[in-house]
Amino acid sequence: MQIGMIGLGKMGKNLALNLADHGHEVIGYDSNAAGEENGFKLAKSVGELVERLEKPRTVWLMVPAGDITETVLTELSGLLEAGDTIIDGGNSNYKDTVRRAKELNEKELFFFDCGTSGGTEGARNGICAMIGGDAEKFKELEPVFQGISVTDGYLYTGKAGSGHFLKMIHNGIEYGIMQSIAEGFDILNKSDFDYEYEKVARVWNNGSIIQSYLMGLTENAFSKDPELESIRGVMNSSGEGKWTVETALDFNVPAPVIALSLMMRYRSQEDDTFTGKVVAALRNEFGGHAVEKK
Amino acid sequence: MQIGMIGLGKMGKNLALNLADHGHEVIGYDSNAAGEENGFKLAKSVGELVERLEKPRTVWLMVPAGDITETVLTELSGLLEAGDTIIDGGNSNYKDTVRRAKELNEKELFFFDCGTSGGTEGARNGICAMIGGDAEKFKELEPVFQGISVTDGYLYTGKAGSGHFLKMIHNGIEYGIMQSIAEGFDILNKSDFDYEYEKVARVWNNGSIIQSYLMGLTENAFSKDPELESIRGVMNSSGEGKWTVETALDFNVPAPVIALSLMMRYRSQEDDTFTGKVVAALRNEFGGHAVEKK
Amino acid sequence: MQIGMIGLGKMGKNLALNLADHGHEVIGYDSNAAGEENGFKLAKSVGELVERLEKPRTVWLMVPAGDITETVLTELSGLLEAGDTIIDGGNSNYKDTVRRAKELNEKELFFFDCGTSGGTEGARNGICAMIGGDAEKFKELEPVFQGISVTDGYLYTGKAGSGHFLKMIHNGIEYGIMQSIAEGFDILNKSDFDYEYEKVARVWNNGSIIQSYLMGLTENAFSKDPELESIRGVMNSSGEGKWTVETALDFNVPAPVIALSLMMRYRSQEDDTFTGKVVAALRNEFGGHAVEKK
Amino acid sequence: MQIGMIGLGKMGKNLALNLADHGHEVIGYDSNAAGEENGFKLAKSVGELVERLEKPRTVWLMVPAGDITETVLTELSGLLEAGDTIIDGGNSNYKDTVRRAKELNEKELFFFDCGTSGGTEGARNGICAMIGGDAEKFKELEPVFQGISVTDGYLYTGKAGSGHFLKMIHNGIEYGIMQSIAEGFDILNKSDFDYEYEKVARVWNNGSIIQSYLMGLTENAFSKDPELESIRGVMNSSGEGKWTVETALDFNVPAPVIALSLMMRYRSQEDDTFTGKVVAALRNEFGGHAVEKK
Repeated sequence: MQIGMIGLGKMGKNLALNLADHGHEVIGYDSNAAGEENGFKLAKSVGELVERLEKPRTVWLMVPAGDITETVLTELSGLLEAGDTIIDGGNSNYKDTVRRAKELNEKELFFFDCGTSGGTEGARNGICAMIGGDAEKFKELEPVFQGISVTDGYLYTGKAGSGHFLKMIHNGIEYGIMQSIAEGFDILNKSDFDYEYEKVARVWNNGSIIQSYLMGLTENAFSKDPELESIRGVMNSSGEGKWTVETALDFNVPAPVIALSLMMRYRSQEDDTFTGKVVAALRNEFGGHAVEKK
Repeated sequence: MQIGMIGLGKMGKNLALNLADHGHEVIGYDSNAAGEENGFKLAKSVGELVERLEKPRTVWLMVPAGDITETVLTELSGLLEAGDTIIDGGNSNYKDTVRRAKELNEKELFFFDCGTSGGTEGARNGICAMIGGDAEKFKELEPVFQGISVTDGYLYTGKAGSGHFLKMIHNGIEYGIMQSIAEGFDILNKSDFDYEYEKVARVWNNGSIIQSYLMGLTENAFSKDPELESIRGVMNSSGEGKWTVETALDFNVPAPVIALSLMMRYRSQEDDTFTGKVVAALRNEFGGHAVEKK
Repeated sequence: MQIGMIGLGKMGKNLALNLADHGHEVIGYDSNAAGEENGFKLAKSVGELVERLEKPRTVWLMVPAGDITETVLTELSGLLEAGDTIIDGGNSNYKDTVRRAKELNEKELFFFDCGTSGGTEGARNGICAMIGGDAEKFKELEPVFQGISVTDGYLYTGKAGSGHFLKMIHNGIEYGIMQSIAEGFDILNKSDFDYEYEKVARVWNNGSIIQSYLMGLTENAFSKDPELESIRGVMNSSGEGKWTVETALDFNVPAPVIALSLMMRYRSQEDDTFTGKVVAALRNEFGGHAVEKK
Repeated sequence: MQIGMIGLGKMGKNLALNLADHGHEVIGYDSNAAGEENGFKLAKSVGELVERLEKPRTVWLMVPAGDITETVLTELSGLLEAGDTIIDGGNSNYKDTVRRAKELNEKELFFFDCGTSGGTEGARNGICAMIGGDAEKFKELEPVFQGISVTDGYLYTGKAGSGHFLKMIHNGIEYGIMQSIAEGFDILNKSDFDYEYEKVARVWNNGSIIQSYLMGLTENAFSKDPELESIRGVMNSSGEGKWTVETALDFNVPAPVIALSLMMRYRSQEDDTFTGKVVAALRNEFGGHAVEKK
């Protein structure tokens, strides 16, 4: 079928190619894109993209969550017609998705949230998709999702928002797994033994209980830089971990490991902390312990 | 080659069968074992086991860490002769291993620590092995470890203790991954969406970033009991997580996620806590907040 | 001066009496209040209260944060006139306060947020007050705040919202201190030594580094129930700790101790956890470790 | 009475002066001390100090825990005679104290562990003392402890080790309180409001629930450096926090707040972390997220 793809960044472009591989005619649009891609056509505006799609249209959004998604949805919903479908494949906050689904459904548009995992590599060769939205309409679209996912790698998760919610939790778990692996290597790094981290990651990724996709990536990372000497340990984050913690708080769920994984990222973004200064000053006050001057 | 296997519990028996599958002649001994197993012979005592092995002998220990390992090692080292080899495949504390290696090496015995991962299933069909000990002697034994491991699933890790140390850290990471996955499902469980956890685990285990052996086991667990209604959430632990945290403290490494994973296990073992009572009593003191009476 | 007090619960009533002690004429109103209190008069409705106050009026709100505060403010702001003053002494979310200040200022009403600490005892005999709002008007009201506070126990904190923000952080710190004290006693409780907790709290509250108001309350609590045997360790919370953690996340500040203090409260509110079930089930899957059946 | 004081550092010297103020004749010794102090005499060696004390002797140790304490105790116990008393006022690990008490008691020496809180200021003017050891002998010594402590600031805690154990837990709590306060100020520091931290600490220390000795010190610290601009936030630690966490682990007590307080100190001692590098590298692997190069 015909599918419009708005957003042709690392994820969107690969997904467009993936869709094309599975027999879909993709018309892409990106405010930064120039020229015709192999495998799919390009429109010069959202308007042109909508015009070139046959009804009922299907438009996949792969743009940054938040304001950009909101802006594109506003423009798009003004151009689409009753019976058309929008799929938000980005990392939108599920609360936004629930609200948007209501608004778009009132315009008789279908709206699916597709939580997308697998990274850029997965986008190209087989994603893991968690899809919320109308159950009946999903059956029509199911072959699309099945085609671009790995085997057993897509799931209809229920009403609108459930896909993005599941993806959010997925990312929260991901934060925890990454921090767990990293803490382990940090302890190894301080030990007197003399481990080769690439080999450690490889053996742990073959037959152990902690075998995992992320352990495979750990092996890759160490194969390129055996002691990670060239990089700084600044751990950025892009929102979903924070939402997971906020959701845990909203539900009164203790989620200490996910929360700490996030907070250690924040910590890594600072060279020095005010918390540390206060504690250092206090130790000086009561015990005369020396403070380090700047 | 001939291998003596002391300890024929869930792990030891499966490992003995695994060794037999790879052409080794296994003579087993377990204080609780009765009758002849398919695939390997049984000795009636440690002494008989030592006697029936040809020199230089190789004896694999698969007994609980701590006192039992110590007792068996003491008996065994009194019976073995210079040039013989002991492999400790259990979860011994690496500090004990370092000490034992020194003592046994002084008796001209080889001593290897083999951290063994993969669970009971892996023991039978292919383990992940992390092996510390004498580098030269290891080359002789390498085919044994290669045979019973999955492809790329064994690693010579360096001097004595390094195998058990690596296995300890592996378990620490395992605690973190398990807690991460579990917290994620706990938040799902409190949400208004209506997820089928088995399907969630399956989709996450196909193409996502959090694909992992433990996610596969999560799917298995939910396939048997979709809401885990039949069990209590008591999380026991068997020492290696604690050692990992203690080691992190010894090395001044912040390992908040592994530490919290362990502490939440302790928390789960109590129905009520003194910590909670103190806080509840304090809230009552300053704010008149009601306490729950027993 | 004349002051209207809306909300005569544990805090409001004591505060009204405190104000009266300092020479103010208090007219109180509470939807649940009946009869005339010693020390202050009662109005039968918000309308009557407003009517009985001389202009420019000063009305202090001591009602639960959230919907009730919103409702009362709406009613009140419809009745008051330009130049009148509202003081919100409750635990409102500072974001609400910022919004309300803007709305009320547009109606030419003064709006102060007064974060109030000290518990019910403090409300009666001397509070700690953190006050945000108009700087000029504050000078007029300063004697009121000074009168009802302990020496050095009030602070003009800046623009609207800054008082409630400071009180929120105060409560976050309070969560951390309470949990710290409680964890300490929990470890004592598990030790082989035979401590009398009341005496421990008393000695720690005399001359030690951890001397504190909360340690004094700890002594009080143990004096009534030496082992806290009569109560359950359920730690409830009323919002400000959660807001503190959310604010920390908003500002990218790692606040692990405050976050964990909150999460351990959530944990205490559950008899069993889904997190625990998942981990227990996983341990059973890979290691055959027994689970506890319900 | 006569008291020997070994160790005349910040704490020991002040304690010697404090003892002298209360009518005791103090003979001090420190390997680094030179000249005669006002208020107490100096011996030139441990041997001379022992010789100059009348029997039965009382010797107070105020030296660093660990090897130095061990060395001094060994020398001292060779010089003292049956019926003499040693008081270890340092921060010894309670396990060492239990062992030493046994050894010294076998030599018919009394051995008390005196956990000492209050900082250098307290040592001079009134400590908080937690004392373990022989109950009968304690009665004899009680006036000494009473004299140098603040009112209600000393406690006989039971058998040997119980004093140091209690002091250890005191320090664990102290870590938690300090981190709690510091996190609070860190959030304030990131807010848009414009607080003067010294004034905040002062108001919180007058009438609030979080009034505490440490809040008073916080006020002092900010009075000297309003934004703590001159110091680095490196939080060192000297052992007792670590022991508290290890003890919590030994007792299966979840103590997340004390543990995290300690771990954030470790984190502050590193400019960059291997944990951070691993997570940053992983984010780059799966999502192409940029890493910061060194």
